[in-house]
Amino acid sequence: MGEIAIGIDIGGTNSHFGAVDDTGEVLMESRFPTKDYPKPQGFVHAFSIKIQEVLKNYQGYDFKGIGIGAPNGNYFHGTIEQAPNLVWEGVVPMAEMFEKQLQVPVVLTNDANAAAMGEMMFGGARQMKDFILITLGTGLGSGIVVNGDLVYGHDGFAGEIGHTFVYQDVGRTCGCGRRGCLETYASAQGIKRTVFELMASKNDTSELRDLSYSKMTSEHIFNAAQRGDRIAKEAFEITGKYLGIKLADSIAYTSPEAVFLYGGLARSGNLILYPTRKYFHQHALNIFQGKASILPSELNEKYGAILGAAALMWKKRK
Amino acid sequence: MGEIAIGIDIGGTNSHFGAVDDTGEVLMESRFPTKDYPKPQGFVHAFSIKIQEVLKNYQGYDFKGIGIGAPNGNYFHGTIEQAPNLVWEGVVPMAEMFEKQLQVPVVLTNDANAAAMGEMMFGGARQMKDFILITLGTGLGSGIVVNGDLVYGHDGFAGEIGHTFVYQDVGRTCGCGRRGCLETYASAQGIKRTVFELMASKNDTSELRDLSYSKMTSEHIFNAAQRGDRIAKEAFEITGKYLGIKLADSIAYTSPEAVFLYGGLARSGNLILYPTRKYFHQHALNIFQGKASILPSELNEKYGAILGAAALMWKKRK
Repeated sequence: MGEIAIGIDIGGTNSHFGAVDDTGEVLMESRFPTKDYPKPQGFVHAFSIKIQEVLKNYQGYDFKGIGIGAPNGNYFHGTIEQAPNLVWEGVVPMAEMFEKQLQVPVVLTNDANAAAMGEMMFGGARQMKDFILITLGTGLGSGIVVNGDLVYGHDGFAGEIGHTFVYQDVGRTCGCGRRGCLETYASAQGIKRTVFELMASKNDTSELRDLSYSKMTSEHIFNAAQRGDRIAKEAFEITGKYLGIKLADSIAYTSPEAVFLYGGLARSGNLILYPTRKYFHQHALNIFQGKASILPSELNEKYGAILGAAALMWKKRK
Repeated sequence: MGEIAIGIDIGGTNSHFGAVDDTGEVLMESRFPTKDYPKPQGFVHAFSIKIQEVLKNYQGYDFKGIGIGAPNGNYFHGTIEQAPNLVWEGVVPMAEMFEKQLQVPVVLTNDANAAAMGEMMFGGARQMKDFILITLGTGLGSGIVVNGDLVYGHDGFAGEIGHTFVYQDVGRTCGCGRRGCLETYASAQGIKRTVFELMASKNDTSELRDLSYSKMTSEHIFNAAQRGDRIAKEAFEITGKYLGIKLADSIAYTSPEAVFLYGGLARSGNLILYPTRKYFHQHALNIFQGKASILPSELNEKYGAILGAAALMWKKRK
């Protein structure tokens, strides 16, 4: 029957998980309520019981273990460290806790690294050894693959392209405490900030003027742009400009074949893809021209995070 | 008697070469006049005869082959491609040419990658698996090491940190045809440009005001700063600021243990090291604080390039 792994994508409200076989087929998937567990111990205990129930349905398979993608996940230590979107404080040894509970191998990394692994095993990067994956969600995450392996760095925290500078010192305030980080421009939050700047500086009518900052989401901006709203369209153009220019910097580091855009804002399709490509190509160093492409992720939108987490089990670090 | 390799550092005027044993001892070193050979064929032919003469003195050693560091060197193809400082035009298959002439293995990469390899084998990075080496010469080169291996990217051209943007679109004109590249600020040329900006904007007396742009070198600026010249000292401060801030970006990619500064301008010691460290620590993301260090290269100044090139023979890509 082949091999299966459990992939878990830990989120603040719910954790999405599934059983994935070695061809990338998701045999089942479900959600588990993270927010119901104020302590990680309770979460791991209850979740493990759930996983054992699920595995009873797949007894013919060789069970490889559990792959976990988590915010601020550290591959080397199997820990979740000071994740701002989770209620659990400090350093949580999540991989070890699941290992003790279930007596199976558990691998954990941050969510963007997990998505990059999924792209390499089951997505558009299947033939690639050097690529970058950018997650455009509430923030901007990144997974960097060099010569077929994820880049973890000496401490497991490599791949923080969201926290490179668009405008050092003078740009937008970032959650990290600094100013001008790419994530404050190119993310769901970033495009909203751009919309608010544009509404302040321009007189164009816009349906977005009827929404408060608290209410507005990137879906509102996407829908407005689809209807031809000029503020919304310009916000996508500017977001793509910031992203494209910084990706021209990014490829100078690892010279990848492609940069994949994944996650919420990336689902806006050509609205984000076209300006990102335009400014990327305008700003890429001559020796990289015509080589690196900006591509949409080919991971299934619904299962991407699970696939990526499960993929960790099949492609462990050498 | 052990093993030896020949390391060659190809330069526009002279090529520096030497015989290096596997402990990093340079058994002999000499120069070969690159500029006397308008065609690479003539260069390789004459240089090979020279190398054969040298090797007669080391017949008791196991000869491993030749490592070459060259401007615009491509590891994958063993080629030197459109190097602006060499008279040879187009794509020169230098590794293959030496292999045919001498019937030994030849490995070639760009000079900054070779220096990074030397730092890892024989310098300050001996215990490190993740680090970055920056060469501050006429331009700014970089070699990035991840998990013990040089990062080449899909095409062999990774590691162009000198061509990431300090000020995209509006900064200084770069030799690459774009504007605002780090190399136009943090390099021997870059600090001279900063001195000229400062002389234009300020009224401080400075011994540097007696030198033309054509005549001034980074040594003049260093010597002036040593004597307390305010323009020269401020130029070092500003150069370190640009470099430190961009290195804060750099570590977000690969999370290295250290960034080594190597080459001409790096020999200015604390004049460049202190401001670079100051702005680096001010701008590094919180999760990297107290981890990555900015360090001077430990490669012997005179032999560094030869050691790095020879090191290519002992640490070939997996």
